[in-house]
Amino acid sequence: MRLRSNEGGGSMAGWEAYLEAHKAQYLEELIELLRIPSISALPEHAADVQHAAEWVARRLTAAGLEHVRIMLTPGHPVLYADHLHAPGKPTILIYGHFDVQPVDPVALWTSPPFEPAVRDGRVYARGASDNKGNVLAPIQALEALLRAEGALPVNVKFLIEGQEEIGSPDVPDFLAVNRDLYACDLVLNADTGQLGEEEPALFLGARGLCAVQVDVRGPNQDLHSGTFGGAVANPIHALVRILDSLRDAQGKVLVPGFYDRVRELTAEERQAIAAVPYHESAITTRLDVEVLPGEAGYTPAERVWVRPTLELNGIWGGFQGEGAKTVLPSEAHAKITCRLVANQDPGEIVQLVIDHIQRQPAPGVQVAAHEIPGQAIPYAIDADHWGNIAVAGVLERIYGKAPYHIRTGGSIPVCTLFGQILHAPTIGLGFGLDDENLHAPDEFWRLKSLERSRMAYCMVLPVLAEQTSPA
Amino acid sequence: MRLRSNEGGGSMAGWEAYLEAHKAQYLEELIELLRIPSISALPEHAADVQHAAEWVARRLTAAGLEHVRIMLTPGHPVLYADHLHAPGKPTILIYGHFDVQPVDPVALWTSPPFEPAVRDGRVYARGASDNKGNVLAPIQALEALLRAEGALPVNVKFLIEGQEEIGSPDVPDFLAVNRDLYACDLVLNADTGQLGEEEPALFLGARGLCAVQVDVRGPNQDLHSGTFGGAVANPIHALVRILDSLRDAQGKVLVPGFYDRVRELTAEERQAIAAVPYHESAITTRLDVEVLPGEAGYTPAERVWVRPTLELNGIWGGFQGEGAKTVLPSEAHAKITCRLVANQDPGEIVQLVIDHIQRQPAPGVQVAAHEIPGQAIPYAIDADHWGNIAVAGVLERIYGKAPYHIRTGGSIPVCTLFGQILHAPTIGLGFGLDDENLHAPDEFWRLKSLERSRMAYCMVLPVLAEQTSPA
Repeated sequence: MRLRSNEGGGSMAGWEAYLEAHKAQYLEELIELLRIPSISALPEHAADVQHAAEWVARRLTAAGLEHVRIMLTPGHPVLYADHLHAPGKPTILIYGHFDVQPVDPVALWTSPPFEPAVRDGRVYARGASDNKGNVLAPIQALEALLRAEGALPVNVKFLIEGQEEIGSPDVPDFLAVNRDLYACDLVLNADTGQLGEEEPALFLGARGLCAVQVDVRGPNQDLHSGTFGGAVANPIHALVRILDSLRDAQGKVLVPGFYDRVRELTAEERQAIAAVPYHESAITTRLDVEVLPGEAGYTPAERVWVRPTLELNGIWGGFQGEGAKTVLPSEAHAKITCRLVANQDPGEIVQLVIDHIQRQPAPGVQVAAHEIPGQAIPYAIDADHWGNIAVAGVLERIYGKAPYHIRTGGSIPVCTLFGQILHAPTIGLGFGLDDENLHAPDEFWRLKSLERSRMAYCMVLPVLAEQTSPA
Repeated sequence: MRLRSNEGGGSMAGWEAYLEAHKAQYLEELIELLRIPSISALPEHAADVQHAAEWVARRLTAAGLEHVRIMLTPGHPVLYADHLHAPGKPTILIYGHFDVQPVDPVALWTSPPFEPAVRDGRVYARGASDNKGNVLAPIQALEALLRAEGALPVNVKFLIEGQEEIGSPDVPDFLAVNRDLYACDLVLNADTGQLGEEEPALFLGARGLCAVQVDVRGPNQDLHSGTFGGAVANPIHALVRILDSLRDAQGKVLVPGFYDRVRELTAEERQAIAAVPYHESAITTRLDVEVLPGEAGYTPAERVWVRPTLELNGIWGGFQGEGAKTVLPSEAHAKITCRLVANQDPGEIVQLVIDHIQRQPAPGVQVAAHEIPGQAIPYAIDADHWGNIAVAGVLERIYGKAPYHIRTGGSIPVCTLFGQILHAPTIGLGFGLDDENLHAPDEFWRLKSLERSRMAYCMVLPVLAEQTSPA
């Protein structure tokens, strides 16, 4: 209704009326999908993951999508579907996943995780927000467009996978093999979210990742710290010295060359970040810390979104039990990850970190550093990319205000993957919110988000159709 | 024989002839004692520890000692015996233990640990060197003196315990309660050793000990290093920074006040240490390290014996498994021990270390440091103490050269205990050697050491008798 008054009726009326008429049915469908315990991490649920794939495949077919296929991989399957009847128009790939996280501790759920319950305008179930609701909405949206309009304004493909929650181990190879099948101009990622219930957001970047392990070896056996302490180098001390050389007191990384390729943000970009509500006091209260210290000259939001970091994720050596043990240990170890931003290269950063570690003086011990596999290339897309302009316009129409420009400090491998293999940019168009207990008990999704998601997909495709032969 | 020619016969002939005549019997006795599996650490061997106590008690009685008593403690027993028939002469307390270490891994023993085997002039068995051989020798020596001379030149007491290998947990309270019974002028500690097979040694000191644990707490839960890395302080980084502030690159302790009470050695004392063969290359080869780095201005032997240290014995926090885990951990911990030298006070050093830790800036985390129980006061005795002069003379007569001045980098709690409770200095008069596989498979003792030990006790008592009313 709100949209109708905004848009003045016209062709929108068709799909909007259709959606309105099928509201109850579409919620029932989501509940049906949520009943499938498609936990990708647990082998005993492999059949359920397959079952979810079949359910979604049937739903795609019912919606009017074509060439629907459950594609095999060495692990859980990946779906393909398309609707390619808009010659000269861009091809849009819609991405999401039908697998879910485990449900432990199950005792903490108010209602059972696979018995969806609607309470207070929310549907509670594992996968409600992440990602079954968010991935079902565009299917329902396309059905509405096809039934109400008889056609789609763009070419559409779907890639919906069953192994996202275990890190999509087979997807890179799968996508490389099937790069022609999934070729597209733009990806709409339904596995993303908005900033708040009334705060739309444009997603502009994710940090990259690389990891290094440091192993310091001293004497070839644990020694008595009385008999040898003072004479023989202690590998924990050597490790501590090396690690302390990696950052300054504020957290700025001291590895030479680390910041060389970092793209500094423009004043406009920094203003856009400053405009995002980043509730420092909510974070300090929730995490029970006094302050959020960090690299000088940057706000906490900037430090998480657009500044690279070096973090010690683990450290160990010697005695960890109760009381004291007078050991001078034989070895000590640490794990490091760096979060990277455009235009840092993970492989280069790994080498810089290893080189820096190897350069530190460490008499009497042997220092080895090696990469831990799992690189992610940082992802960044400009706010004025045509995909973002289209999505921003739609979000503004739905929410009544322009979206914030947000990023994530984490990594989103599919963004990188689609860029590298399909040469297509990824635009977030998901409606998850941070408070929805993702990966935790009592996961839920707002029914309002389900409706907004369907509307957003119905509204964005005509806008994207206005693009002609994108680069 | 060698002694006779040195001493020109005289009264020594009596005990020396007696020892010579009973050589085979005395070895048989040691073998009998070594058959008792008196492992104090293992509850299933408690009866064997008691059995060993009874064996030694009978042997003390047979030797002519009086008032032999198996004293009860909450744990393994402690023996008392005396021979107090030298009015006006000093009272000498002889210390040792009849309990032994466990024998695992038993498969690595050439002959079973409790079936003593004599091979190549050595007796192989658990406890042969540590401490049954060393504690039986003075009993046999006193028997020889009593049988051959009819009297002892000094007053003698024995304290032989059954819980040394588990840290003598009951001995401090036991000794405090029985301080009058064990009152003495000097302790001869049979649980010590010489430097080498032909290298006698005077034992001048042991380092003290104190321990501190550091606990750094950041956010109240483990966080995703992508979502929070850069904004929230990482407790491992804070810990690493604190720990790195404790020492300089060479290992010198940077805690203010740490060295304030350290007694610097005289030039003579340093020369005596320099004279001790301290085989750096043997240590580096055996431990597979390139160099022995440490506090500038001191040799490795000095750094181990007469310089205090601060060592990280353990460190842990975050992820320690295979691969990478992008966690910003909630907490990180480390364990520290300091080895102390005269005249440092363990309680004071604990406080200095804690104060230093608490002074380090650590924004966004909470740093707690607390003492780990187990203080030991450093022990030091001058080379020209009357007990050392007596022992040094005897060692020179036995070995044909003056003893080296050695110390241990470890702690010897009984030295401190006897000083604090009995107000008596402790002089080492044991004949263990470092190569005798103490606490390891194939422990052995040289038969030559058994003979030397008996001679040493027979020879030292008349010299000690020359002291009149020691302070």
